[in-house]
Amino acid sequence: MSVKVQQALPLRNVTINDGFWTKLQNLVIDVVIPFQNEILEDRVPGAEKSHAIQNFRIAAGDAEGEFHGMVFQDSDVAKWLEAVAYALSVRPDPELEKKADEVIDIIGRAQQPDGYLNTYFIVKEPDRKWQNLHECHELYCAGHMIEAAVAYYEATGKDNLLNIMRKNADLICQRFGHGKTQGIPGHQEIEMALMRLYHTTGEESYKQTAQYFLDERGKTPSYFAEEIKRRGWHHWGNKEHPEYGQNHLPVREQTQAVGHAVRAVYMYAGMAAVAAETNDAGLIKACNTLWDNIVNKRMYITGGIGSTVHGEAFTVDYDLPNDTIYAETCASIAMVFFARYMLELEPKGAYADNMELQLYNGALSGMQLDGKRFFYVNPLEVVPGIAGVVPDQRHVKPTRPEWFFCACCPPNVSRLITSLGQYAWGENDKGVYSHLYLGGSANCETAGMHITCESNYPWCGDISYTINPKTAGLERFFATRIPAWCSKWALTINGNPAQYELKDGYAYISRKWEAGDIVVLSLSIEPKRIYANTRIRANAGCVALMRGPVVYCIEETDNGHDLSALRLPRESAITTTQKDIDAISGVVVLEAEGARVESCENLYSQAPPQCKPATLRAVPYFLWGNRESGGMRVWIRE
Amino acid sequence: MSVKVQQALPLRNVTINDGFWTKLQNLVIDVVIPFQNEILEDRVPGAEKSHAIQNFRIAAGDAEGEFHGMVFQDSDVAKWLEAVAYALSVRPDPELEKKADEVIDIIGRAQQPDGYLNTYFIVKEPDRKWQNLHECHELYCAGHMIEAAVAYYEATGKDNLLNIMRKNADLICQRFGHGKTQGIPGHQEIEMALMRLYHTTGEESYKQTAQYFLDERGKTPSYFAEEIKRRGWHHWGNKEHPEYGQNHLPVREQTQAVGHAVRAVYMYAGMAAVAAETNDAGLIKACNTLWDNIVNKRMYITGGIGSTVHGEAFTVDYDLPNDTIYAETCASIAMVFFARYMLELEPKGAYADNMELQLYNGALSGMQLDGKRFFYVNPLEVVPGIAGVVPDQRHVKPTRPEWFFCACCPPNVSRLITSLGQYAWGENDKGVYSHLYLGGSANCETAGMHITCESNYPWCGDISYTINPKTAGLERFFATRIPAWCSKWALTINGNPAQYELKDGYAYISRKWEAGDIVVLSLSIEPKRIYANTRIRANAGCVALMRGPVVYCIEETDNGHDLSALRLPRESAITTTQKDIDAISGVVVLEAEGARVESCENLYSQAPPQCKPATLRAVPYFLWGNRESGGMRVWIRE
Repeated sequence: MSVKVQQALPLRNVTINDGFWTKLQNLVIDVVIPFQNEILEDRVPGAEKSHAIQNFRIAAGDAEGEFHGMVFQDSDVAKWLEAVAYALSVRPDPELEKKADEVIDIIGRAQQPDGYLNTYFIVKEPDRKWQNLHECHELYCAGHMIEAAVAYYEATGKDNLLNIMRKNADLICQRFGHGKTQGIPGHQEIEMALMRLYHTTGEESYKQTAQYFLDERGKTPSYFAEEIKRRGWHHWGNKEHPEYGQNHLPVREQTQAVGHAVRAVYMYAGMAAVAAETNDAGLIKACNTLWDNIVNKRMYITGGIGSTVHGEAFTVDYDLPNDTIYAETCASIAMVFFARYMLELEPKGAYADNMELQLYNGALSGMQLDGKRFFYVNPLEVVPGIAGVVPDQRHVKPTRPEWFFCACCPPNVSRLITSLGQYAWGENDKGVYSHLYLGGSANCETAGMHITCESNYPWCGDISYTINPKTAGLERFFATRIPAWCSKWALTINGNPAQYELKDGYAYISRKWEAGDIVVLSLSIEPKRIYANTRIRANAGCVALMRGPVVYCIEETDNGHDLSALRLPRESAITTTQKDIDAISGVVVLEAEGARVESCENLYSQAPPQCKPATLRAVPYFLWGNRESGGMRVWIRE
Repeated sequence: MSVKVQQALPLRNVTINDGFWTKLQNLVIDVVIPFQNEILEDRVPGAEKSHAIQNFRIAAGDAEGEFHGMVFQDSDVAKWLEAVAYALSVRPDPELEKKADEVIDIIGRAQQPDGYLNTYFIVKEPDRKWQNLHECHELYCAGHMIEAAVAYYEATGKDNLLNIMRKNADLICQRFGHGKTQGIPGHQEIEMALMRLYHTTGEESYKQTAQYFLDERGKTPSYFAEEIKRRGWHHWGNKEHPEYGQNHLPVREQTQAVGHAVRAVYMYAGMAAVAAETNDAGLIKACNTLWDNIVNKRMYITGGIGSTVHGEAFTVDYDLPNDTIYAETCASIAMVFFARYMLELEPKGAYADNMELQLYNGALSGMQLDGKRFFYVNPLEVVPGIAGVVPDQRHVKPTRPEWFFCACCPPNVSRLITSLGQYAWGENDKGVYSHLYLGGSANCETAGMHITCESNYPWCGDISYTINPKTAGLERFFATRIPAWCSKWALTINGNPAQYELKDGYAYISRKWEAGDIVVLSLSIEPKRIYANTRIRANAGCVALMRGPVVYCIEETDNGHDLSALRLPRESAITTTQKDIDAISGVVVLEAEGARVESCENLYSQAPPQCKPATLRAVPYFLWGNRESGGMRVWIRE
């Protein structure tokens, strides 16, 4: 029994025509997706060998050769296909669709008669299938390909990949479950995927297996520990670290976000997705608790999560170093998924606020604005000569690298940006939610309303909705989010102050709607100083700047060397100017009169340091590293 | 040809009767040395097994069994014996001497007929001697035992251990050298040791071999790389990291302190010791450059060196994180050695200032004031629940552990504190230097002066010297250091202002001395605020407190939780009070009116944080962790 209070619209019902995101969607569609295809096909000179599509060809018997790449190399193809599907939803492209169909054909030929599909094991270790769920990611790869299949079906109406992956999912559901073979995924992802497949097909066993994987996790004795003992071989290591894989406690008893951040939050998203269909009070409570733990104790101001490279993991409450940080792009994307499912359970603005925070900051910073370079790690402080160099920061690259051997983040950004439409709106049979303020339109079939949105968000806070009900005088609510960061706003309807009820971060306007009704939300969107909890040691004495949902940073290219010597006094006024930076036009840049602390010559001095005036210029964090390389920091000395 | 400008006094010519150090020497002699003997003999319940003396018994054929411990386990016994020797110089103890003689007897029986002495190889891998200099530390262990032998000979006049180690050194000198077998030590130490043996015995080959090891280091092709190829087996790893072992460049071409900090600085000390006897301009220049690089770019305010646990190593200029720090106790001790040898080359106060900085801070902090617990790592910031817990700080213990499997630091502290006398004074045939202000006496035979010193340093800046020349009217200089931290001082002789020449941090009084002449140095020793170079990011916006050579810190036990929320305004007066803390009486505690920043509830807030008044209390850094456990920090927000 679904307990979703509202749900996302199918992508086909959303169009995006947005001053900010359309260009980025075009960049992904025109540059990133073709480039990623070239990468996957090993046609980019100098890039690390991917071999991901070739692995499928070999598995299909279309080519000779050896498997190459990570044990989860298949997922790169899956994420690319999923992004392609979303790209086709944004705008048709017969050539791209043909290319995708060709790849899908290969995938289909690579699949074994029983539905099994994983090129690593088909090609390299056919006798070891399903024996090493702990490390070998068969279920993770399946999950990503299932998501691609659902997306491709929804975008094109074609069931070619869907049929392949249903057969694969059926094999998984036949194998794993209560009373069947025991098992849980090493890297969670299959839970969300099976729930999407369930929504698309209505097949109960997919939902049941998703729930099984959650139920089974964290049991004693540990499935992984038993598997390791039983199998007697390993891929990377022969020891389980239960917290790393969120296998330390039954999921309903977990209260703190621990371990590998992407695995963790993919799992939490899966928990929320299952709970929305099963009304499982234990799961819902755990989701709420874990959400609170992240956003109130373990999250960077950019939305980034994962404080350490060791295990790419959460650490402990308030441990949020800016320079040795991990904050993987994929983890921010995972938070978008988690927020989306939480929002479906309970329409609280806080979830959409976080989704927005991730989109405009921790996720978007992952991609260079030429679409060809990507960050895994999204630091909040970079010092040239130290970041990427000293052992504790070797993982913190001061510029976006071209591509990675383990290439999870780039295709994940692609699929996020191309599928933005599914995060922007929500509906139920009583009305419509506007979670994000993306320009474009939403055809809300369940609510019976068609809505267009115009905005110049996030640079400007005026958002105009034109509402067309299916039938004149239809009584519905229209709820638009009022972000928690906004302390002043106005809401009008057809030019007059609107009557609304403010509840959990949404302003609900309930009325009988007529064609062409115009709702205008005016958010006061001023630069704001943000202060951190004193328990975040790295930010003590510092201030950060935000404007709307956008976190700012200071870069060396605008502010000179030695950014930790810059100070922004509390009383200094912050002014805004607009300029075009790369693909982004009208970027609001912040300026303020501050000071530069003059350094002593030696390491230490008794002489109190003096300051000289300095103009500080801050740019949106997601833009950093797009111009001259150099230092960057988000938290500025006050 | 020795180019020593002045040299340390033999320990037998120095007595220490000092308000600060005598208690600590007694602690080491009465508690630490006996306790360490119990450890070495495996008689401490709950302590990790040492087996170090038993290894010698097994090698000697006195006992059955297997070698146990690190490949350099022998050095624990060596450092203990060296500390025992110094203890016997401080005060005779027939029982302790008897115990030492028994251990020396065992060592003698363990030695092989050709002089070879290393229990790991004798007992465990007799066929692999001298094949793995890279990892297996035969030369390092020999070095420590040679130092013990020299110390024991000087303290007791007995040549039992000296003869054993001469035989061992002869074997080393016969084996290694130009035209003989090639080799360099994996962990430097033998260079300093051979120079000490040279000074004691006058045997030229010891000096030549010390120089050979330095000359050979950093050559291309790398000795270690060749050795690894040749031998085909390894102990820990089969790859050389040339910078880690300072083997990346010929030593005379090295300009930056890199790699394992203890190895590096032991080597630099050895370079200075060799240069003082050979007047090797290349070595002297390299020593000067490396010294400057450390003290001007890579040293913590406490004197600590080594910014990262990865390789226990230096990183890059200005990378001095307070919380992920290494700053090994042994590395501070190594700096004392380096400073001492540099001082002999050139009597510059900066060297003695640094020696003093290390003694009162980075080295002394290694030992709990009960003499039973020891820090390896000496952090400048500790947050409970994070230090020792999160991956990047797992090595940073918030309280001193009892003993370590790899037990280098505790016996190193013991030998340092018991041998303090050799750092306090210097002499040549024209006069005497007072480098430190330790109470006690110095019989300066070369200069022909006997000097007693009374002080209550470091708590008080008044130091009184009574000078007795060998013959009345003897014309000599008496030079007392004027520390760089001191901006105001006075110098009197027999109650009248003294005539002196200030040069390189020493005040030289040259005159004809009469028995009982009294020189009083009055250093103004006020609490001082210290500011860091702005390129040390971790200290931006912060101030540290020093008084004289003593660095202060704030501890949770005095200041409440969340120390990064405390602020010490620049204008706030700092007052002093005295109290007894453990073994240390009359500790000067600093107090100031400051403020505590009140935290927001959530992680981030738009509300500017407010402050409420708070009294800050700072205690000497070396004392931290001796009372209730909790947070600590040296750098306080201003």
